[in-house]
Amino acid sequence: MEEPIIGDVFGEMIRDAYAVRTGIGPRPLAGGRLPRPVVEVIERDDGLINGAPADHYLDEPSLWQPHDHRALRLCRGAVLDVGCGAGRTAVELQRRGMAVTGLDTSVGAIEVARARGLRDTVIADVHTYASRATARYDTFLLLGNNLGLLEGPERAPAFLAALAELARPGARIIAHGTDPYGTTDPLHADYHRRNRERGRLGGQLRLRLRYRRMATEWFDYLVCSVDELKQLLEGTGWRIKSIDEQDRPYYLAVMELHS
Amino acid sequence: MEEPIIGDVFGEMIRDAYAVRTGIGPRPLAGGRLPRPVVEVIERDDGLINGAPADHYLDEPSLWQPHDHRALRLCRGAVLDVGCGAGRTAVELQRRGMAVTGLDTSVGAIEVARARGLRDTVIADVHTYASRATARYDTFLLLGNNLGLLEGPERAPAFLAALAELARPGARIIAHGTDPYGTTDPLHADYHRRNRERGRLGGQLRLRLRYRRMATEWFDYLVCSVDELKQLLEGTGWRIKSIDEQDRPYYLAVMELHS
Repeated sequence: MEEPIIGDVFGEMIRDAYAVRTGIGPRPLAGGRLPRPVVEVIERDDGLINGAPADHYLDEPSLWQPHDHRALRLCRGAVLDVGCGAGRTAVELQRRGMAVTGLDTSVGAIEVARARGLRDTVIADVHTYASRATARYDTFLLLGNNLGLLEGPERAPAFLAALAELARPGARIIAHGTDPYGTTDPLHADYHRRNRERGRLGGQLRLRLRYRRMATEWFDYLVCSVDELKQLLEGTGWRIKSIDEQDRPYYLAVMELHS
Repeated sequence: MEEPIIGDVFGEMIRDAYAVRTGIGPRPLAGGRLPRPVVEVIERDDGLINGAPADHYLDEPSLWQPHDHRALRLCRGAVLDVGCGAGRTAVELQRRGMAVTGLDTSVGAIEVARARGLRDTVIADVHTYASRATARYDTFLLLGNNLGLLEGPERAPAFLAALAELARPGARIIAHGTDPYGTTDPLHADYHRRNRERGRLGGQLRLRLRYRRMATEWFDYLVCSVDELKQLLEGTGWRIKSIDEQDRPYYLAVMELHS
């Protein structure tokens, strides 16, 4: 097989999902074929592949999980929506009159977020943004499992330091995570064990996204327990303020900066 | 990345799709997570990947495309449903009192077809079945784009000869195909062009299926125009009797044996 081409996989995918939903967008329907839902494909480094409909990235609040609603009620002040994607949560915060900036590395995702009305957007990762931004924030929002952006023990301190640079006094992170260790699926349990054997956290996933002929580079995405999260925070200035585990295995972690 | 494991990808996928739909099946839901639709992932040899919900393989007749209904009305006598999958069409023919045998190479698909009530099933490809079967058929049904099982100019004659061996006098093939050449998507148009440059039919797709940690071997699957089909039939004893192009680019081809 030819290797896929490295590119903005998420952006191309979300552009198409938006086009299927709204009829707005660049992709022509193929020769009169039945339109199909856009599917996100994720490969894991053990050969696992997973496909899931991408449409939920565009869901209106009435279709959200309960923890997303609870997360938004915890926001205060100026909000940085980290990995905002197509603006699912940022657009809703803006609608409520909050000051919100949507940050994402995907050009295509930010394009869709803007098309959906999000006014304040940045195309960057947190490190680049922290190095150049003068804006400061009271809330960092990491929803849609975006606690995973901590990547793992090696990279989490720098990620959290970047947020600290962008923080006003008393700022908080509101992050959605998933405890991976309740699985009864041997395929995942084996992966966790093999990860630990090579010195990684069990849920430190090595992934890449694929869409059409494109792929991302391989990257780490962290799915961790609350206990693991507490250990990752040690020495960073961020501390757990509360954990909401009503929708287990999903949880909402609120972290505060004590620097 | 570790290489996926070769196995009954379609069978594992369809077992899970059946379990999600009915609650019957071996796969435990993962640690209380939200159940997700099962997705079929197909890779093409140019690096293209495509995901599509697998649930349609289990659809009841009320959800079928119109050409599937027209195809079933063309069946007569003893029917061999070639690549019957989870029995979508074979179960309906049986319900209508027709004599129908479901043939598939996938152990898992036949297991689901039997669980759904299909009584007469065979786990084999047409070559193996033709070499050992004493049963003979009046109708060979290739729905769900299964005209693709002709693979291409090299393999189509042997496939059609196997059906001829299994045929009663005056037998017909009823096959669902798709004309690929109406696409306006450069990604597919380029693939067709490159295929022709290496001596293949434009729509002679080189594919593999993936599900979880499993993959099939790479195989050819033919998506061809009606003109290409006519050329493939030359010298095989099978001739076009009718083409139904009401749902273009999809078509139903009826072929009859004149030996």
